[in-house]
Amino acid sequence: MVLYFIGIGLCDEKDITLRGLEVIESADKIYLESYTAILSPNANIEKVLGKKTIIEADRKFIEEGSDIMLDEATNQQVVLLVVGDPLCATTHSDLMLRAYEKNIQVEIIHNASIISAIGATGLQVYKFGETVSIPFFDGNWQPESFYDKIKLNMKQGLHTLCLLDIKVKEQSLDNMMRNLPIFESPKYMNINQAIKQLYIIEKKRNERVALPSTLAFGVARIGSKNQLILAGTLEQLSSVDFGEPLHSLVLCHPELHLIEKKFFEIANKRVIDQLKARSV
Amino acid sequence: MVLYFIGIGLCDEKDITLRGLEVIESADKIYLESYTAILSPNANIEKVLGKKTIIEADRKFIEEGSDIMLDEATNQQVVLLVVGDPLCATTHSDLMLRAYEKNIQVEIIHNASIISAIGATGLQVYKFGETVSIPFFDGNWQPESFYDKIKLNMKQGLHTLCLLDIKVKEQSLDNMMRNLPIFESPKYMNINQAIKQLYIIEKKRNERVALPSTLAFGVARIGSKNQLILAGTLEQLSSVDFGEPLHSLVLCHPELHLIEKKFFEIANKRVIDQLKARSV
Repeated sequence: MVLYFIGIGLCDEKDITLRGLEVIESADKIYLESYTAILSPNANIEKVLGKKTIIEADRKFIEEGSDIMLDEATNQQVVLLVVGDPLCATTHSDLMLRAYEKNIQVEIIHNASIISAIGATGLQVYKFGETVSIPFFDGNWQPESFYDKIKLNMKQGLHTLCLLDIKVKEQSLDNMMRNLPIFESPKYMNINQAIKQLYIIEKKRNERVALPSTLAFGVARIGSKNQLILAGTLEQLSSVDFGEPLHSLVLCHPELHLIEKKFFEIANKRVIDQLKARSV
Repeated sequence: MVLYFIGIGLCDEKDITLRGLEVIESADKIYLESYTAILSPNANIEKVLGKKTIIEADRKFIEEGSDIMLDEATNQQVVLLVVGDPLCATTHSDLMLRAYEKNIQVEIIHNASIISAIGATGLQVYKFGETVSIPFFDGNWQPESFYDKIKLNMKQGLHTLCLLDIKVKEQSLDNMMRNLPIFESPKYMNINQAIKQLYIIEKKRNERVALPSTLAFGVARIGSKNQLILAGTLEQLSSVDFGEPLHSLVLCHPELHLIEKKFFEIANKRVIDQLKARSV
């Protein structure tokens, strides 16, 4: 039988493709991956699934329980729904390899990903270097590897897409140790927080990667009706309210191409207007 | 009113999203961009459009006639269908800018793009540098800029996605000069031809970018039922028949990550088996 990785796009249940829907209709088991990304809080994926039930594949499931899913796929038609395009996260490549090793046939149904949708900023998608994830700083745990990668991208003339941390179904250390299935409320990093964390590292390292004058795009809820794409210096963006999650941040290589520059100016004008209106 | 850029994905009419379909249903005018990419030859986009007619937006239209479309969008709901994700091609960013300048509202409906779908190879999508296009060499016109970009990507530890040329609705010089609307049959560059052209430049430049030992993935008809993903050295891939278009080629940075390496080996085994079977 087949294990299908079905991309469900960026935003809500309407982003699924006709091909994806067709496969879902004949599936025996449907999992929804909720570890590496989420759909908009208003998404109602059940709406397009009819009477089928969805099994949530959270972090615990993906890390510890996914063998169950692979075993089912040896004799049933199993679907793993994944936000975005399925093979953009290493987690899923790894899962696919394990399926290969068990001789399970894998099929991928592609969909929109932030990796290409970021083109909506007007920045050229092939002018991006390695994508980074910015995790929530937590007391003494303040990793800096994303700073190094941004620095490397900039040196190479490339922009950097920063995906911002989400924490869904996290247990407190205490509850984890007592094995209590009690979860903290979900937490989504916003653009302002990401900039703050970049500044913390910049202050320590002083390597001119994330200065108040660094050019950036802030992108919220990309692909949805109320998406927000604003551009400015980190200083300008640090005080803008981008609203509901999910947020992403692009740190630009300072030399924008002509078309990129025009898009930047249009998206920057909105910020300037907002900051002006606020100071009146 | 609104100008919608609707991504229709990689392969055929089933790759459209429910959101895209909804917008199409209420559209006044529907254009299909056929200049920068094409769907599979078996795609039947009319199937999902009901009674609506599609106007082909070919190269001539995009380059010379797109003002008509922009003007219509000032008082009608106009849709431009684009293969892949709409904002991955500079052509469309430029069109979007011109719409902004005319105060036309633009909405984008994202979809799968080769930029993220290339993850199906098992290569990490954020380990790709600038995407290049390899155009058909034509007598004395043998541009080398893509060779330089691949070289730069390799130096930076990045893979390179090479999009291979398509020529649809091209006029011969003679017919163009006589303004005769007679078009050559469509031409799609295959992987073997791309490797040949890379070798031609390599021979001239001798900068060790495209050697017979260079690691690569050849990808045909990605996202379709009969997609083919094979990996090997350029020498191995140069003699494989990948079948129908569209083809793409990935030149790998020689140091693959552990997971990438495993995917390479799986996809390489298929090539070795094929070459063995042939030599028997």
